[in-house]
Amino acid sequence: MAPLTELGERVSNASEVLARSSSEQKNEALVCAADALMAASSEILHSNSVDVIRAEESGTSATVIDRLRLDESRVEAMAGGLRQLLELSDPIGRVLECWSRPNGLEIRKVSVPLGVVAIIYENRPNVTSDAFGLCLKSGNAAFLRGSSGAIDSNIAIARALRKGLAAAGLPEDAAVLVTDVSHEAAVKFMQLREHIDCLIPRGGPALISSVLENATVPYVIDGDGNCHVYVDKAADLDLATDVVVNAKMQRPSVCNAAESLVVHSEIAEQFLPRVAKALTGVELVGDERARNLVSSIAAATNEDWFTEYLDLKMSVRVVDSLDEAISHVNTHGTGHSEAIISADNVATEEFAHRVDAAAVLVNTSTRFVDGEEFGFGAEIGISTQKLHARGPMGLQQLTTTKYIVNGQGQTRG
Amino acid sequence: MAPLTELGERVSNASEVLARSSSEQKNEALVCAADALMAASSEILHSNSVDVIRAEESGTSATVIDRLRLDESRVEAMAGGLRQLLELSDPIGRVLECWSRPNGLEIRKVSVPLGVVAIIYENRPNVTSDAFGLCLKSGNAAFLRGSSGAIDSNIAIARALRKGLAAAGLPEDAAVLVTDVSHEAAVKFMQLREHIDCLIPRGGPALISSVLENATVPYVIDGDGNCHVYVDKAADLDLATDVVVNAKMQRPSVCNAAESLVVHSEIAEQFLPRVAKALTGVELVGDERARNLVSSIAAATNEDWFTEYLDLKMSVRVVDSLDEAISHVNTHGTGHSEAIISADNVATEEFAHRVDAAAVLVNTSTRFVDGEEFGFGAEIGISTQKLHARGPMGLQQLTTTKYIVNGQGQTRG
Repeated sequence: MAPLTELGERVSNASEVLARSSSEQKNEALVCAADALMAASSEILHSNSVDVIRAEESGTSATVIDRLRLDESRVEAMAGGLRQLLELSDPIGRVLECWSRPNGLEIRKVSVPLGVVAIIYENRPNVTSDAFGLCLKSGNAAFLRGSSGAIDSNIAIARALRKGLAAAGLPEDAAVLVTDVSHEAAVKFMQLREHIDCLIPRGGPALISSVLENATVPYVIDGDGNCHVYVDKAADLDLATDVVVNAKMQRPSVCNAAESLVVHSEIAEQFLPRVAKALTGVELVGDERARNLVSSIAAATNEDWFTEYLDLKMSVRVVDSLDEAISHVNTHGTGHSEAIISADNVATEEFAHRVDAAAVLVNTSTRFVDGEEFGFGAEIGISTQKLHARGPMGLQQLTTTKYIVNGQGQTRG
Repeated sequence: MAPLTELGERVSNASEVLARSSSEQKNEALVCAADALMAASSEILHSNSVDVIRAEESGTSATVIDRLRLDESRVEAMAGGLRQLLELSDPIGRVLECWSRPNGLEIRKVSVPLGVVAIIYENRPNVTSDAFGLCLKSGNAAFLRGSSGAIDSNIAIARALRKGLAAAGLPEDAAVLVTDVSHEAAVKFMQLREHIDCLIPRGGPALISSVLENATVPYVIDGDGNCHVYVDKAADLDLATDVVVNAKMQRPSVCNAAESLVVHSEIAEQFLPRVAKALTGVELVGDERARNLVSSIAAATNEDWFTEYLDLKMSVRVVDSLDEAISHVNTHGTGHSEAIISADNVATEEFAHRVDAAAVLVNTSTRFVDGEEFGFGAEIGISTQKLHARGPMGLQQLTTTKYIVNGQGQTRG
């Protein structure tokens, strides 16, 4: 295994070449990488079976094994994901702003690649290919560090991607996989300031904590979503029922699923029994007022209000005002996606203005907060931080800017 | 002294009020704060004299004492700085993008305050007022942590600013100064993730290292400027001489001053003796080829190429090509501001495209990379990182965004 700093140097060098590659070159590399994935399909599946057997032997849970396991259609989906990027416009080289100064200086702000984008991720081998594709399209070299559990799959996938790069005449090192999967190597990786321009961790709370504690490279946190749906007194209750059911049940395991229902007291008596019925199969826990209206709701603990269940479970709270709803959401939310259901425009504006989150949804489901649903074409994650990117991160969020100042000999007085 | 977490809670609460304040309210608070500074002038100067005497007694250098020392005109300048912000447009509430989706969802991306902006800074008491003003104008609460050496001045200034906030009907806690100036408190401060949305350190390498090592809050690094001027073979040598002299000598102690001169070998014989003469008073160190052309140039060590002198000293290097110049700049620069002097548009485009820095200057001085000179009206620092903000940071860089999604009951299928 090459030492991390050597890998870093290689990926840095490749990033310089990538930064000046044309849209055509990058697109050709995406096609070649997709072809290489398909050509290596049986090799990838063989390597994946090694990972899966190891996981089964060590008693890994069925859910995790399901995420890990590849089949032909999943390899095809990875290749298809790369080809999909062809249709998106190149985020690099756009003039974002330009202006002149009284002294004649002309200033342009242009979009440029970040350079080296590092991704630390868990047991999903498809991230190797997906993250690589987004990085390549945005002119960034991808420095990838997957988990030990998927190491054989990741090595096989990365090998194919690198073949694709070479076939398109771009440096293979625009995709570098770290094969040292020790904890020590992960910590070192997070501290490679010389070689990493942006780190995006894709994983659970333990990974995020480790990044906060150890990283000295710049990073964007793709964090928890303790998302609320607030049903206002002026809500259309049919609409509210549909949205709550969708937000909670359509795919409970993802970060933009709703975890908590907040209901205005004036409509609680009418709405709660109805929505509880529609949420059949969902375990509900709530405050006393909610429990008085629906006997099947169990008592919520204080911890429940802060919990992202990622499961068929939901907390229910009754409030007396919009103010109380906003305060509840801002106190317990994680700044991800928060919805209000109301026909009262004053209330929805107030909620949208005062709730502190990446996305506020008015009369629609939290599940729409997603790069694809926003029309970004692809997504590397959903940022819950406020710096650099907030909310769904597409290609544009993988860029930075550069000022180019043109003069005719101006000096500062 | 209130514990840090209590201060954090107070400044967080104030930030919620500030986030929904109107432009008029924020402007009124700026006026009131400026008035309060002027009214407290003698108190501020008295407190400052305590800091200055303590500094003198402990043998602090004259330069540091000069930065620390206030007089009436400096207090007036602080108040004037706050009033200057009145003319700038409010960066909050702008609709940056808006679009519709095929399912009828309407998505708006709007600018919102970061929330609580924390500043850690060194011995310049004017930062207390300047940073507060930029935070207030951009709807952010300011959480300020100055150095022990300026603590009496900072307390007096913060007291005046808080009076100004109260006079305008805004919460005093929109400006909170940490008075525990111990190292332990600084480390804790950098880890207040609950209460700090963005930390901007304003200080030297030791402070930056401490932030990289300890901070768990999001931060923007205002780092070193090892800035180069590259004089191409196609340069107008009069223009080149003027720019090099300006970039090096006009104010050598600041981060956008040039530290290194890179000269194409084809014009070195003609240019170097001439620019060396124009740089009278500047200590030059260079490579062998430079020294062969100008005998007064001393030998540069490898360290020199990486050094930000912040003084009347400059390294000189002769290169044989544009490629070599770009590679030298990218290897030794700090990603701040890099200039090329050339009449050849192909060369300047290539340099601008391939040099990896916050700003690239073509035929003008690195000294122009500055919030005021860019027309931002004010500046909180110059970011040398690529995430969130790169280059001069004005009011816009103190904002984040929020997506507001309006629907009519859409659910995800």
